[in-house]
Amino acid sequence: MDIAAYMAGVGQQARQAATAVARSTTAVRNQALLATAEALDAARSELAAANARDLESGRTNGLDAAMLDRLELTPARIDAMIEGLSQVASLPDPIGEITDMTYRPSGIQVGRMRVPLGVVGIIYESRPNVTVEAASLCLKSGNATILRGGSEAIHSNQAIAACLAQGLAEAGLPGNAVQVIKTTDRAAVGELIAMPQFVDVIVPRGGKGLIERISRDARVPVIKHLDGICHVYIDSHADPEKALAVAVNSKTQRYGTCNTMETLLVDQEVAADILPLLADAFREKGVELRGCPQTIDILPGVGRATEEDWGTEYLAPILAVRVVDGLDGAIEHINRYSSQHTDSIITENYTRARRFLIEVDSSSVMVNASTRFADGFEYGLGAEIGISTDKIHARGPVGLEGLTSQKYVVFGDGHIRT
Amino acid sequence: MDIAAYMAGVGQQARQAATAVARSTTAVRNQALLATAEALDAARSELAAANARDLESGRTNGLDAAMLDRLELTPARIDAMIEGLSQVASLPDPIGEITDMTYRPSGIQVGRMRVPLGVVGIIYESRPNVTVEAASLCLKSGNATILRGGSEAIHSNQAIAACLAQGLAEAGLPGNAVQVIKTTDRAAVGELIAMPQFVDVIVPRGGKGLIERISRDARVPVIKHLDGICHVYIDSHADPEKALAVAVNSKTQRYGTCNTMETLLVDQEVAADILPLLADAFREKGVELRGCPQTIDILPGVGRATEEDWGTEYLAPILAVRVVDGLDGAIEHINRYSSQHTDSIITENYTRARRFLIEVDSSSVMVNASTRFADGFEYGLGAEIGISTDKIHARGPVGLEGLTSQKYVVFGDGHIRT
Repeated sequence: MDIAAYMAGVGQQARQAATAVARSTTAVRNQALLATAEALDAARSELAAANARDLESGRTNGLDAAMLDRLELTPARIDAMIEGLSQVASLPDPIGEITDMTYRPSGIQVGRMRVPLGVVGIIYESRPNVTVEAASLCLKSGNATILRGGSEAIHSNQAIAACLAQGLAEAGLPGNAVQVIKTTDRAAVGELIAMPQFVDVIVPRGGKGLIERISRDARVPVIKHLDGICHVYIDSHADPEKALAVAVNSKTQRYGTCNTMETLLVDQEVAADILPLLADAFREKGVELRGCPQTIDILPGVGRATEEDWGTEYLAPILAVRVVDGLDGAIEHINRYSSQHTDSIITENYTRARRFLIEVDSSSVMVNASTRFADGFEYGLGAEIGISTDKIHARGPVGLEGLTSQKYVVFGDGHIRT
Repeated sequence: MDIAAYMAGVGQQARQAATAVARSTTAVRNQALLATAEALDAARSELAAANARDLESGRTNGLDAAMLDRLELTPARIDAMIEGLSQVASLPDPIGEITDMTYRPSGIQVGRMRVPLGVVGIIYESRPNVTVEAASLCLKSGNATILRGGSEAIHSNQAIAACLAQGLAEAGLPGNAVQVIKTTDRAAVGELIAMPQFVDVIVPRGGKGLIERISRDARVPVIKHLDGICHVYIDSHADPEKALAVAVNSKTQRYGTCNTMETLLVDQEVAADILPLLADAFREKGVELRGCPQTIDILPGVGRATEEDWGTEYLAPILAVRVVDGLDGAIEHINRYSSQHTDSIITENYTRARRFLIEVDSSSVMVNASTRFADGFEYGLGAEIGISTDKIHARGPVGLEGLTSQKYVVFGDGHIRT
């Protein structure tokens, strides 16, 4: 197979289909989403058979248990895909919205219209349900999609692709509006990220290694989500009850998510009071603490945090703890070690809260709230294609709006420039 | 000189300065702009002397007349720089604006705060006044800037840099908030566009060649402005008077600008009526027409347009003319040959106007208005760092808002996720 030629064909077809999708009505795109849901429901046995093939090869190839778990399409996961499609169908259509329309002194009327980006490339790993999730968000926002999942999920993804094709056909949309790459050859990824003439943006979903590789080599803009080294800072003016609740929730509500707290900062003025309470709570949850020397003075049993700990996303029941010299010390630490994902201050002090919000340069900054809230659903975006740790285009949780752009519209009455 | 080490130093200093600029108040940033204006006014003789050195070397090195003109800092251009600074100072500060604040079912309050991008790299050619223009917009929007002008303007740019340094110092801002690269070595550009750890976005300003080179090699996001192949489509339901006025203005108000019309499309139903009138008007302005066969049937004296003409940005008194089969023919031509910059329809027909707005995928789409209006000042942005032909982050004229991003802010009261 000539991968370059195959991918160029996929790109060309996507570009063509994008025009049709962009022009389609809200009702037609919703119909495609709902028809895909029905097709998935009708294809449960085909999906299970395809997934069994992938799982079988996965076991033969020695995939670990976590990977096999992500690969599995259980009936509950198929239910969730179906439910997700109808949720996306029920979201408001972002496309076509006209805002900021004003008259200019010249007499022209100028505003902005929300439009699709065009062709979105999604690169992901073993979870086949991402195929439906990503395709549905791109379609809802008027884009064509090229999906490249992990090679271990190829049969599951092709079975899902058949359902998507059926949904598109029933709504009268071109089948190429959603294309799932048919080859497991890694060269396909290299082509996909280097076709700016056919692809408008790449959204990689997966581990840091995948995303770093893609960002380095891409010739197409990438909405990237690197690590989440999130902080909670307990200020001396914190309400201890809120501090305890938020710190424990930020760390323990889930360990493996990017918005989980990885380092806890405590103002030295209250460290001796609050750290023992926190230590008890974390011990109860089975969280290992690693502390700075001042932390260890207060909590003698705690292991020593190294420089490396401050920059580590554990994704595990481990927490780095550092005693800092007030708000300045906290902000300095955060702006040095944070991955600019999500950081929260616990304080009752108005001026410190305000300074934290302004001076911490992260995609989500919070006051008296758990970092675990940094999520498209919790923020009310209705859906999430990913969380951006980039600064341009979209920061933080990215919903449908992040898959769109705005063009200018100008209304005149024969107006000319003088 | 070790260019890589020098540029890494510049990057590191910019990154540090960016924090101070982001935290500075509106008043302080405006003070720096106004103090720079005063410094420029006081340094007129130094600016003239530095510019004379550049002009002298330019002549020695055989620069053409157009290049020497762009390089020259006349007293009027110094006046314009000074005036520009006070205009930028008077614009509203985009930073800190909080929007979309809503309560979520969980009880948290979520909104978005406008923040600077961080460090903006500007790469431009011979015009030294761009140094002040670009620096002032980046500073106003809370960013640090690294400026790299054409080597032929090095002395002029360094003289301007001294005025900027003085302005920053008077406002108490770090001098590294605006750095003008001190070396003319081309390797500096290569370093600048490959330091994502220090630079958040690159805005190249110059010819298509420069921008293509930078986009190809950059490892930092680029807000790019490629060519402007702009169209006016005269529909069969056009008011002939408006059609004539807009078509002539779109082509002849200025020839060398990116929003100048390069191809005129005329519906075949009205071609025989309107083309002779247009031909007269363009002949009077000295515009050479190049037509499709149908155009030549109506205007026998006109030269034949080749396939290449449809894709050419003339930037000159030359206009390609094509007779098309109604709105569908026009949209098909535009979506094939347009550079997605600015396209305008002339029509009194509601449905056709609406279809044109939706189906033409360009950064500015217009009805009954001259393409020459596609400009940050005409759109009311107050200023313009460039025009983006990209789809992500910013499309069309880019003002202060394009140099910012939005982060999420979350207010809670000890809220945790359950």
